[in-house]
Amino acid sequence: MLLNKVGEFGLIERFKKHIKTDPSVIVGSGDDCAVLKFKKDRYQLFTCDMIVEGVDFTLRDKLELIGRKSLAISLSDIASCAGIPRHAVVSMGIPKRMRVEDVEKVAKGLLTLANKFKVNIVGGDLSAADKLTIDVSLLGEVEKKRLVLRKGSKIGDIIFVTGSLGGSIRGKHLKFTPRINEARLLVANFKVNAMIDISDSLAQDLGHILKASNVGALLYEALIPMSKEAVKTEDALYGGEEFELLFTMSLNEARKLMKKNSGIFKPIGKITGKNSGLILVDKFNKEKSISPEGYRHF
Amino acid sequence: MLLNKVGEFGLIERFKKHIKTDPSVIVGSGDDCAVLKFKKDRYQLFTCDMIVEGVDFTLRDKLELIGRKSLAISLSDIASCAGIPRHAVVSMGIPKRMRVEDVEKVAKGLLTLANKFKVNIVGGDLSAADKLTIDVSLLGEVEKKRLVLRKGSKIGDIIFVTGSLGGSIRGKHLKFTPRINEARLLVANFKVNAMIDISDSLAQDLGHILKASNVGALLYEALIPMSKEAVKTEDALYGGEEFELLFTMSLNEARKLMKKNSGIFKPIGKITGKNSGLILVDKFNKEKSISPEGYRHF
Repeated sequence: MLLNKVGEFGLIERFKKHIKTDPSVIVGSGDDCAVLKFKKDRYQLFTCDMIVEGVDFTLRDKLELIGRKSLAISLSDIASCAGIPRHAVVSMGIPKRMRVEDVEKVAKGLLTLANKFKVNIVGGDLSAADKLTIDVSLLGEVEKKRLVLRKGSKIGDIIFVTGSLGGSIRGKHLKFTPRINEARLLVANFKVNAMIDISDSLAQDLGHILKASNVGALLYEALIPMSKEAVKTEDALYGGEEFELLFTMSLNEARKLMKKNSGIFKPIGKITGKNSGLILVDKFNKEKSISPEGYRHF
Repeated sequence: MLLNKVGEFGLIERFKKHIKTDPSVIVGSGDDCAVLKFKKDRYQLFTCDMIVEGVDFTLRDKLELIGRKSLAISLSDIASCAGIPRHAVVSMGIPKRMRVEDVEKVAKGLLTLANKFKVNIVGGDLSAADKLTIDVSLLGEVEKKRLVLRKGSKIGDIIFVTGSLGGSIRGKHLKFTPRINEARLLVANFKVNAMIDISDSLAQDLGHILKASNVGALLYEALIPMSKEAVKTEDALYGGEEFELLFTMSLNEARKLMKKNSGIFKPIGKITGKNSGLILVDKFNKEKSISPEGYRHF
């Protein structure tokens, strides 16, 4: 069977059937981070992300930004769980033709972002490879009471997104600042029921929340914040690599958030019963079902 | 400057100059695992290893063994620090032409070894890639008093190696069992001063211990345990991917070990002052300096 038949998520489901974990694993494969037993009042978070030349970037991109992105996407996973990033190890597959100075630029981009978010780079592995490949594994921690997962959305919750969406491929995917500070501000002041970062697409990542929480949703087209790079609503709905936070909270908490809101958190819809699925309310107030499509690796 | 001018270790030295870590990092980049603050009586270990098609294996190798190797080499790093493996995340770059059934074979090899060593696979990332690439990041833990690093060898220590060496490329590199149990047995019963796993070569990895410990060494050619795949001493001295343990302990501890020894731990030399460097005593009792050569990625 070809990979495009089952796709990334189908493949993960096949693997997961064979995975056994012991009670030290609070949440295993299937959320943005693994959640592990750690300290009395804290969990440890563990995540990894691989970027590959020709898929996630090209060598015509600024080299510092490639290194930066390799860490930024893992930081975004820690943000999704409302965690504090701590330690990372970095594996790099490097084409033999690359110059030392160019590899150092990649490393510099990564290390500068690591310093900004107080991440300790504690190890790594270098290998020859045909295509530049960088895999960052990141540890974080989160207070038990502040952990947020994909599951937990309740009917009536308001759906929020940070920043604006669409057209990330025109540059944002290399330059975005992971929403660590925004996530920490949220959980310090409000009760967040579910959260994810938009890596595949708004529609697909909202789909992950809906599936994990066993609910449906209404999205209001007029409310979706569009980037200036976005041409049409579909760009914001189905575009990948936005790395914005998507989260839901009760109407009451949403009201409190809106009052204090600096403008970065925007309400875009609400959680409904499971049977209605994912529905877009367009600018003429017409409802249509949309499917959770997004970036496909295979 | 070309990568082969500085090599893997030169590149790592260049990166390390720019890395800052906070006091939660007991040992950062430069040993087999990072060592992190964890519990009152335990440290956490953190390591990663990437394998790449065409470098570490080919698709003509048995697919289960490729998956197995991707975890086994990280387990070998945890063994080097005398730790207990706990949790892993796995990033895979997968060629689009691969069949689902074949990817599942790779996963099966990895998961079977994970079950054997009670490693929880807690997450991962799948991406398209030209060449099959697998990066495993592994967490472990070790009692503070049992941690063993590359540094710590003392003049007069006896140098030991597990198993036999040479010709690993003929199959052992895909099939070896990581020396977790042997390392745990050692630290439970003896005082080990320094330890590493032989991934680059006996000469090169002993060189890492010598440099970290600021000492020299004598190796006795006649004592080096040769695999049946090894043709000449050089195969055992300079061959990579053996994944045997190389460690040193005081003469007193060495005598205790030899008494209880099941035959798997073999003395091959002794630690000397730094100035003598690394010397091989050949079968005619002649000494010659050898250089710490081994596998070169670039």
